Amino acid sequence: MRIPILKLYNCLLVSIQWELDDQTALQFQEDLLQKIHETGANGVVIDLTSIDFIDSFIAKVLGDVIDMSNLMGAKVVITGIQPAVAITLIELGIGLTNVLTAIDLEKGLEKLQQELGE
Amino acid sequence: MRIPILKLYNCLLVSIQWELDDQTALQFQEDLLQKIHETGANGVVIDLTSIDFIDSFIAKVLGDVIDMSNLMGAKVVITGIQPAVAITLIELGIGLTNVLTAIDLEKGLEKLQQELGE
Repeated sequence: MRIPILKLYNCLLVSIQWELDDQTALQFQEDLLQKIHETGANGVVIDLTSIDFIDSFIAKVLGDVIDMSNLMGAKVVITGIQPAVAITLIELGIGLTNVLTAIDLEKGLEKLQQELGE
Repeated sequence: MRIPILKLYNCLLVSIQWELDDQTALQFQEDLLQKIHETGANGVVIDLTSIDFIDSFIAKVLGDVIDMSNLMGAKVVITGIQPAVAITLIELGIGLTNVLTAIDLEKGLEKLQQELGE
C-alpha cells in the first residue's frame, strides 16, 4: 500500500488519513523524495488532520523526510497536527523546529506560497 | 485500505494511484459521498493519471459515483484519463457523457472553478 502524492502546480500534496505502519512510512519517504525529484516541486504540504496517534518510529520518519525534502530544495509545511500528536511529538523530543505548520490544508498552501514568494 | 480524499476550499481532490480492487472501489464510493455530505463541497476532481488499466466493474462504480455526486449537488471532473483507459471506457459503452474531463489535475481544478462560476 502506498500513500498517494498529488502534484498541484509547483507543490506536492499528501494527506495521510490512516495510521501508518513502518513499511508504509518508509515507502512514503522513498516515494515522496522520488516525486520531488521527478516533478521538480519546490513545496510539499503533508496533511495530518485525520491522524490522532503517532508513534516514535513514524515521528522519526516524518522528521527525516522533512529534512531530506529540505536538502532536495523543497519546503515542507505540516498541517492539521492534532493535540494528541503535538503532545507525542514534543514528549518524544521531536519539535519539528525548522518546519512550517498550519491549521489546515488551505492555510498550509497559502503559507507555502508566501514562503516561496508567489 | 481506503483512498484519501483531500478537501481544498470548496472542492474535494482524489488521486487514484493504483488499480482498485472491487472492495476498495465500493469503499471509495461510500467515502466520497459521505465526504461531500460532511464538507458541503460543490466540486470533485478525480485524477486517474496513474491508472493505466480499468476493468468493467471499476468503470461502472466510477460512472455511478459521478452520477451520485451530481445528485448530491457536486460537479465532478475526471482528469488524466490515459489512452488505454479511454479505449476501455468507450468499448464498455461507458462514455461518461455528462462528465467534465481535463488533461491534468491543475486544468481540472481550473475547469471546475469556471463551471462553478468562481
